[in-house]
Amino acid sequence: MIQLLPVRGMPEAVPGAPLGRWIADAVAIEQGDTLVVAQKIVSKAEGRIVKLADVTPSEFARQIAEGRDARLVEIVLRETRRIVRMDRGVIIAETAHGFVCANAGVDLSNVDGGASATLLPLDPDASAARIAGEIGVAVGVIISDTFGRPWREGLVDVAIGMHGFAATTDCRGQADSYGYPLQATILADADQLAAAAGLIFRKTARVPVCLIRGFSVTSGPGKARDLVRPRDKDLFR
Amino acid sequence: MIQLLPVRGMPEAVPGAPLGRWIADAVAIEQGDTLVVAQKIVSKAEGRIVKLADVTPSEFARQIAEGRDARLVEIVLRETRRIVRMDRGVIIAETAHGFVCANAGVDLSNVDGGASATLLPLDPDASAARIAGEIGVAVGVIISDTFGRPWREGLVDVAIGMHGFAATTDCRGQADSYGYPLQATILADADQLAAAAGLIFRKTARVPVCLIRGFSVTSGPGKARDLVRPRDKDLFR
Repeated sequence: MIQLLPVRGMPEAVPGAPLGRWIADAVAIEQGDTLVVAQKIVSKAEGRIVKLADVTPSEFARQIAEGRDARLVEIVLRETRRIVRMDRGVIIAETAHGFVCANAGVDLSNVDGGASATLLPLDPDASAARIAGEIGVAVGVIISDTFGRPWREGLVDVAIGMHGFAATTDCRGQADSYGYPLQATILADADQLAAAAGLIFRKTARVPVCLIRGFSVTSGPGKARDLVRPRDKDLFR
Repeated sequence: MIQLLPVRGMPEAVPGAPLGRWIADAVAIEQGDTLVVAQKIVSKAEGRIVKLADVTPSEFARQIAEGRDARLVEIVLRETRRIVRMDRGVIIAETAHGFVCANAGVDLSNVDGGASATLLPLDPDASAARIAGEIGVAVGVIISDTFGRPWREGLVDVAIGMHGFAATTDCRGQADSYGYPLQATILADADQLAAAAGLIFRKTARVPVCLIRGFSVTSGPGKARDLVRPRDKDLFR
């Protein structure tokens, strides 16, 4: 059995907040647990917050704002390495980390009622490692965010940072129950863990951390950047 | 708390197998549970199996086989409505259902050691409804398969069929904890449930069903086809 447990009762995240210690205070963590931490509180703890009032939009940001707040568009552009698509007031952007998502991960929700935006952590793998270090017990840590995806409706949570285990499990060459060797089976464990935690996270429920117990991670030095597929290897694009 | 429970001890699926009754015999189901059933046993129960020896490949299948078994390529082509991309021995195909996946969901693993391939169920939403009907108790049912995706490495489980609840939860207009109305938040619940079950399914572990307890589904007449984004609405493409 695998258990998904909401972690409640943590203080409001502020810049410099020791999230790992707070999590360890809020829930009884056991060795082998995996903790999924919502990006929003990590960004807040790392001071990755920008007040709209402090931003002067560029001419380009004004041009493409299409009725949106040009200051917000400016923030999105600053977080963008490549615009994948731009239409109907949405910017699908590739971030400096290589993630492809709406508005480069810039988000007004759950900050202060719309006056400030959060940005993705600069190095979410390092964020996860720092949180794991603060916890002390040997756990896996994932930083998750909610992304749209091609071809399918709706958002799912994915791993944008991680520490303490392998991002994927490579089953290629293993025999199935009938002795047939599996061909192309590399499982995105970190993303499945993030998606499972997404069942616990509800945008309005103030549960920013999910503890997952009972899933045996594959050991290895995993990074969420391992989950970013190089463009030249991506048959799906 | 949400629990993910492996359902073990079911007989080997054969054409005509009453999967819902078998599941109800194998595990104590409670009202409000969600059952995720791996596509493979649904395809077997529905006789969606083709022996390679019974297939004569077309000239085109031979041309594009690139060292693979042309009979398998022929089966893939028969399941394909549109070839999205074809390279290095992989066909990314859109199926008749509208799903975009490798080899149109045709798969040699976990059948009979490579002599036969399974095809996706013809109507996986109907498959889920039938299984739910056989169970009797009011449960959600998902048929899941393991898909690759653009931009990210590794496979995740997604819902290809479902019954008994809404595929997505629309949070647009709800206020966050700071009173800010959420903008674009439609959560793909069925896919997150399928991904969570993917933590229980391991290709070689012979666990074809996962029971999820403790997740409050959104009520509504959901279909996995609701998760297929119409091409003209898909900014990510």
